[in-house]
Amino acid sequence: MTKHMVVDAAPRPTAAARVLAVLGAFGPQHRRLSLSEIARRAGLTLPTAHRLVRELVKWRGLERDENGLYSVGLRLLELAALSPRWLQLREAAFPYIDDLHETTRGNVQLGVRDGLEVIYVEALRAREQNAVNSRVGGRWPMHATGTGLVLLAHAEADLQAKVLQPPLRRYTPLTVTDPVEVRRHLAHIRQTGVAVARGQITPHDLVVAVPVLDPAGEVTAALSVVVETERARPRELAKLLTEASRSVSARLARTPISLPVPRRAPG
Amino acid sequence: MTKHMVVDAAPRPTAAARVLAVLGAFGPQHRRLSLSEIARRAGLTLPTAHRLVRELVKWRGLERDENGLYSVGLRLLELAALSPRWLQLREAAFPYIDDLHETTRGNVQLGVRDGLEVIYVEALRAREQNAVNSRVGGRWPMHATGTGLVLLAHAEADLQAKVLQPPLRRYTPLTVTDPVEVRRHLAHIRQTGVAVARGQITPHDLVVAVPVLDPAGEVTAALSVVVETERARPRELAKLLTEASRSVSARLARTPISLPVPRRAPG
Repeated sequence: MTKHMVVDAAPRPTAAARVLAVLGAFGPQHRRLSLSEIARRAGLTLPTAHRLVRELVKWRGLERDENGLYSVGLRLLELAALSPRWLQLREAAFPYIDDLHETTRGNVQLGVRDGLEVIYVEALRAREQNAVNSRVGGRWPMHATGTGLVLLAHAEADLQAKVLQPPLRRYTPLTVTDPVEVRRHLAHIRQTGVAVARGQITPHDLVVAVPVLDPAGEVTAALSVVVETERARPRELAKLLTEASRSVSARLARTPISLPVPRRAPG
Repeated sequence: MTKHMVVDAAPRPTAAARVLAVLGAFGPQHRRLSLSEIARRAGLTLPTAHRLVRELVKWRGLERDENGLYSVGLRLLELAALSPRWLQLREAAFPYIDDLHETTRGNVQLGVRDGLEVIYVEALRAREQNAVNSRVGGRWPMHATGTGLVLLAHAEADLQAKVLQPPLRRYTPLTVTDPVEVRRHLAHIRQTGVAVARGQITPHDLVVAVPVLDPAGEVTAALSVVVETERARPRELAKLLTEASRSVSARLARTPISLPVPRRAPG
């Protein structure tokens, strides 16, 4: 640990931070990157990037294609599948999500909070053309998504304050970006148990979302359906979603999310 | 890069390798680990493990639960979703997988090769009790899975030789572990376009699997259905799978797997 004895003028990223920066260079708009793009986006010198990329390829965390471009490798899917908040939640919810997908012919999403945002742990896209582009692993702001509004409505006050700190991102003319107005909406969601929002991310769509409870009765996820506003019947969607959510919650209660691994003692 | 000037007696893991070792400490049987378990499994001292775990938690690659145990965090799902071989393939295939799942009432898997093994990029479990436990992100040996046999049948000779190097793991009395016999099976798969195997991983199940072609006509994935041998109608399953696979291949040809990101020039 000699480097801890060296006092740098500028804070120097740790070795771990450099590896994570290489992975963090990839994003929805940057799925395939050249080595020099990785170096630039990660803020690393080319030799350092080269060395780290080589190690990550060996580990199968990155893959190199025939054009010499790198993309995220399947080792990361294998790892992600170990997350209790992803696969076990998804497996409990899938049959109900699948039914909702078929019944509503809309996009169906299951979202959980990660930091100040929502991540979709499942997303089934409507089969129609031009369906909203929601994807598993997608990260979205809470104020603009149905699942996010439900999770935010049931979050602690200081989290709400952080999330609602202006400016809130605007996606369409309908996106609610006034924190006071969002808070009014959150109160209404707590009162009714359902979030309904129009055109927050795509102008012509409507989302209905409901909470999913863990065995302790806490809101652990949110389930939503997105359909075109024109054909949306929010009350019916709310009813279907509430039934589905109760079934998922009941199933979570039967098969705790930490299964099949037995609980271990702390330490 | 001073550490490169130090000549150690024993090869010392690089800083990157230590970060990856922390992530690699987690596995299907080790989804929740204490700090000392992480240190032990990663072969690190407790202070080093502590420092790396702290960085990974900050980065949301690990999460700490109320019992002080760590698990894989959703940042890894977000990253995994950037893999062209996962989400884009899955999205092209999902409607057909979903239909197969409903029609066959079996487990449906979509697998791709990763190194010498298969990884499931989608897996829908049959709704019945005691369905085979196949999961997204699951990694399996090629000789024992339907998808693996299909991928192996169409792989290059040196890859086949590596995979078929004895001993091959036995899961049930029916698992074929004799490389010569596996090779005979591979030839038959190439001839018929379909893999049928009984009881390779679970004794009472039968798998039927077919290749999925990329736009260049190369085998890029394999699609399989697992049902109880007792009620299996392999010929009918083969027909359904072949139709589904053709549809997926056609869809991949229409929306190349690198979409929605435009191809970039190499370098």
